[in-house]
Amino acid sequence: MTYCLGILLPTGLVLASDSRSNAGVDQVAKVRKLEILRATDERVIAILSAGNLATTQSVVTALKEASQDDAPQGSPGDLRAPKTMFEVALAVGSMLRQVEDHDAKYVTPFGDPSASFLVGGQIKGEAPRLFQIYSAGNFVEASARSCFLQIGETKYGKPILDRALSLGTDMREAAKLALLSFDATLRSNLSVGLPIDLLRYPVDSFSADDLQTFEEHDPYFRELRRAYAEGLNALVNGLPAPP
Amino acid sequence: MTYCLGILLPTGLVLASDSRSNAGVDQVAKVRKLEILRATDERVIAILSAGNLATTQSVVTALKEASQDDAPQGSPGDLRAPKTMFEVALAVGSMLRQVEDHDAKYVTPFGDPSASFLVGGQIKGEAPRLFQIYSAGNFVEASARSCFLQIGETKYGKPILDRALSLGTDMREAAKLALLSFDATLRSNLSVGLPIDLLRYPVDSFSADDLQTFEEHDPYFRELRRAYAEGLNALVNGLPAPP
Repeated sequence: MTYCLGILLPTGLVLASDSRSNAGVDQVAKVRKLEILRATDERVIAILSAGNLATTQSVVTALKEASQDDAPQGSPGDLRAPKTMFEVALAVGSMLRQVEDHDAKYVTPFGDPSASFLVGGQIKGEAPRLFQIYSAGNFVEASARSCFLQIGETKYGKPILDRALSLGTDMREAAKLALLSFDATLRSNLSVGLPIDLLRYPVDSFSADDLQTFEEHDPYFRELRRAYAEGLNALVNGLPAPP
Repeated sequence: MTYCLGILLPTGLVLASDSRSNAGVDQVAKVRKLEILRATDERVIAILSAGNLATTQSVVTALKEASQDDAPQGSPGDLRAPKTMFEVALAVGSMLRQVEDHDAKYVTPFGDPSASFLVGGQIKGEAPRLFQIYSAGNFVEASARSCFLQIGETKYGKPILDRALSLGTDMREAAKLALLSFDATLRSNLSVGLPIDLLRYPVDSFSADDLQTFEEHDPYFRELRRAYAEGLNALVNGLPAPP
């Protein structure tokens, strides 16, 4: 399983993913699920992946290779061409359909070939945008009314976001909430695992440099988890019991 | 959807259920999902239901009717006969299979006929016990190593239990944690709804009298939800943001 989270704020994007891949409990690996597809001074595009690992790697690799500086212009996954993030989402959906058309009938007898993605970024001329690409290749966009999107094992980490995240949350606070959302998921589901990759993209920065990786022994993340657990226990203990 | 929770502690049982039944978003009703099947001075047996409402009502009604004081002795769902809660779980599983055998092939074209249950209680001569009956009619039992069981929409309400509930938690605190677990689920999933029925069964009490119903405007539950939301926001705000 996987947990990926994207948050769209007026001040920028916060994107985060875990790193566990498993095909059964005896085949567990760490993989990178957050990739920067393109980062130049006029577009930054990031993708987060959930689902069949062969499918997601095919899609992400094909998009990356078609979007490199020296790749031929105008191939299907070329993300240098789109004028908007909406067109980027269309291109990702198309690439997913292409991979499914190529592989699905061979893979299905062995397991589910499907995959889904979060795609976030900014192209000069528009604000940052965030999309969720479904297994069918269609997609929805985050908005002021629903400012976060999740894929994979989404439920354990949703209550903290429903409670504490709003459009007015600044990016540092949103990054903290993202890590707390992952903390809840890590505690309740073994199929989601460290490290967490976390990208903060400030609006109009056109930089993907603020990408942090939180390992088990990261001092900040350890202290955050410890302080949250301790504070939550104190909070719960302090509330009155039912009459 | 549904959320039902059972907690087994050395000091007794805490059982709780929501009350929403829905077949699509335009057919929503309040139903009771926590029923006392038998309460005498030598056995208290409670059941909590999730899944197809026609199936769960058939199973629960058949068990109740077969277990009444004036029912003929020894019919399949007669819960006066079992010497242990294990035998009660077997009888509930059998009744579920009987109902499925009777109805499933007619119901399946229209929707999923399956159902699952939590069964908790105490029979004189043994300690309180708690079982989860799967759709297949087989079951597992709660133990000191996994002291709570959930059915239905289980994920949103699991993190708070994973964090704060332990064997040493007393029953009043466990009841509070159960309500906080429901609070998280109510906030994140529309298909789980108030009121909450909450039964506290103290070990060796042989009484099902401590059954409370928490409605939307219950002063204790409102205050609990408010204080928890406020405390959690303060806690999160007080934690340091990522470097």
